[in-house]
Amino acid sequence: MYKDRIEKIRRLMDDQGIDIVMITSEPNMLYFSGYSAVSLERLIALLINREEEKVSLIVPRLEEKRAEENCKLTDFELISYSDTENPINILEKVFYKSRQVTIGVEETIPFKYVYPIISKYVSIRYSLVNDLIYSLRIVKEPEEIEALRKAAEINNRVLLEAIRNIREGLSEKSVMMHIKNYAFEAGADEVSFALVQSGSHSALPHQEPTDKIIHSGDAVVLDIGIRYRGYYSDLTRTVVCGSPSTKHVEIFNIVSNAQQNALDAIKEDIKAEDVDLVARRTIESYGYGEYFIHRTGHGIGLEVHEPPFIKVGNTNLLKNGMAFTVEPGIYLPDQFGVRLEDNVIVSRGGYINLASIPKSLYIEDYDV
Amino acid sequence: MYKDRIEKIRRLMDDQGIDIVMITSEPNMLYFSGYSAVSLERLIALLINREEEKVSLIVPRLEEKRAEENCKLTDFELISYSDTENPINILEKVFYKSRQVTIGVEETIPFKYVYPIISKYVSIRYSLVNDLIYSLRIVKEPEEIEALRKAAEINNRVLLEAIRNIREGLSEKSVMMHIKNYAFEAGADEVSFALVQSGSHSALPHQEPTDKIIHSGDAVVLDIGIRYRGYYSDLTRTVVCGSPSTKHVEIFNIVSNAQQNALDAIKEDIKAEDVDLVARRTIESYGYGEYFIHRTGHGIGLEVHEPPFIKVGNTNLLKNGMAFTVEPGIYLPDQFGVRLEDNVIVSRGGYINLASIPKSLYIEDYDV
Repeated sequence: MYKDRIEKIRRLMDDQGIDIVMITSEPNMLYFSGYSAVSLERLIALLINREEEKVSLIVPRLEEKRAEENCKLTDFELISYSDTENPINILEKVFYKSRQVTIGVEETIPFKYVYPIISKYVSIRYSLVNDLIYSLRIVKEPEEIEALRKAAEINNRVLLEAIRNIREGLSEKSVMMHIKNYAFEAGADEVSFALVQSGSHSALPHQEPTDKIIHSGDAVVLDIGIRYRGYYSDLTRTVVCGSPSTKHVEIFNIVSNAQQNALDAIKEDIKAEDVDLVARRTIESYGYGEYFIHRTGHGIGLEVHEPPFIKVGNTNLLKNGMAFTVEPGIYLPDQFGVRLEDNVIVSRGGYINLASIPKSLYIEDYDV
Repeated sequence: MYKDRIEKIRRLMDDQGIDIVMITSEPNMLYFSGYSAVSLERLIALLINREEEKVSLIVPRLEEKRAEENCKLTDFELISYSDTENPINILEKVFYKSRQVTIGVEETIPFKYVYPIISKYVSIRYSLVNDLIYSLRIVKEPEEIEALRKAAEINNRVLLEAIRNIREGLSEKSVMMHIKNYAFEAGADEVSFALVQSGSHSALPHQEPTDKIIHSGDAVVLDIGIRYRGYYSDLTRTVVCGSPSTKHVEIFNIVSNAQQNALDAIKEDIKAEDVDLVARRTIESYGYGEYFIHRTGHGIGLEVHEPPFIKVGNTNLLKNGMAFTVEPGIYLPDQFGVRLEDNVIVSRGGYINLASIPKSLYIEDYDV
């Protein structure tokens, strides 16, 4: 599997005239080598050379043993450096050739790993290779779909447990902690986020859980991201603690409609933006267009946000095996917000929805 | 306080000929504006122009309200962009002048926020400003020392609780979850990491907690990083579950000696590397030099790892108000490891140790 992916990217490198791809992000490192590590303070880089079969893995000495044990590639050279050595010197030696060399790097690579070389050698150019790598990752292989399914299975259980336990008097943070604990029990490897936004906080899509107490009549947005064997699930439901108001019901129904219309639109060979437009037009038709302040969804896989982005301007066609979220929302400032988020995989016939959890404002509807 | 910091960096920008500093990292954003946000998928940037009093804050629309509420600067312009707009266009307009312009950026800025402009305008140059900003941040102001003290106070309690609860049969992950829960109860805003490494895992300094069960006779390294009001504490102790072996005791005493010698060496105007050398030579004198595979310490403040780095090659002088960890360790592959980590602040007379927790291999010694 890993060997196959390396061969595929080498072919794309040939097409695009990229001599070396330097992988530094965790998801791509995992994708190409099975080794989960991230280049933050210390450089960790997988170098794929289009002229050589063998790839090189550069790690700090601290990581040497983990790298050896976790890298699944059969043919790789491990280069380690100590805290007193500068890994840029290793890169310089590998990159520097008398002729022009193009190095493919990821968008997320910290500038410090590019700057010293860019400012020293005119013969070394950089090129962003995110699109190239995503062109491989965007269509999920069967093993990946299986991992996404399992991640969603766990997340459905976690979200259900969280909703059933919402009650007056709990703080947002205590609900978050319960989610995190339960997620580990349920088999998650990592809880990336557990947003619990109550009352007016639910109108702020990025609000972190606070000490605010949940009161009767509060809308509560629960948005949970967990990871399992490298793959993410990201699900959201909105409920009301106690009795929903007429306004809660009105907004919930619009969001629910928008989401269902967007889901119904999913099929092979339609544009990603069309799914967004369906959700957006539904919400606009009810006069709430200006309160739907984000895109309809994002791809999901080794990253919690990755292509395909389901937003205006993305004219890429959906293909069998693509995985993404569908999550319209309406946010009424200082009042409340409602968002519903499912995870789907495009299939030949339409889509598979990985969210099995009910959709309702009423907590009792989750006692299934 | 924030205004004062902006004025200070403007003076440094004048000295170094930097026209605009673009802040994108969370700690520096917090330092200069009081607003905690991070530029990952969507650009969030604070632009400090040396010719203008007012600073600009660029945020996605999703963040607009949080930015308005949390930015503590009295004079700033908020520029927001929607998911369908490209924030690079905003940067282009601000940066582009007919003459040569130098933009100061941080090492951590994702390359995607630099690349489009670097590849389009030759009149726009980039310069790394981390050292410049750290030259301000490295000496802690009284409010910052107070925050570091409180963070350490909380972390001492958390680590103590964790050690007292170590027993045979618990998994590393369950100990980690207990630490995370307790840390929030104890007042931490964030638990950055809670490493629990038992038996041979303790020989791997970066090993994340696993399902491994702690057995009697296992060394257990507990390394906890928490954040309080933006400031970090990072403390480590090593204990043995049950009775330590002679080898455990031998290694613990060497590490403990090395740490004490390093602490004793701390005073104003000695080189940072000298503290490292004292720890390193102590360990070498017992013949374990090759098993001390990392630096002796790192600065601590708005980041859990920041200057001053206590390592060979750092000839910067320690000054009153600098804060850092002292954390020698010995790691015997496939056997066990021992690390002890305190947090200190350099004072006129030597140092203040923020770690009040005992140092012992025996769990019962923590019942204080």
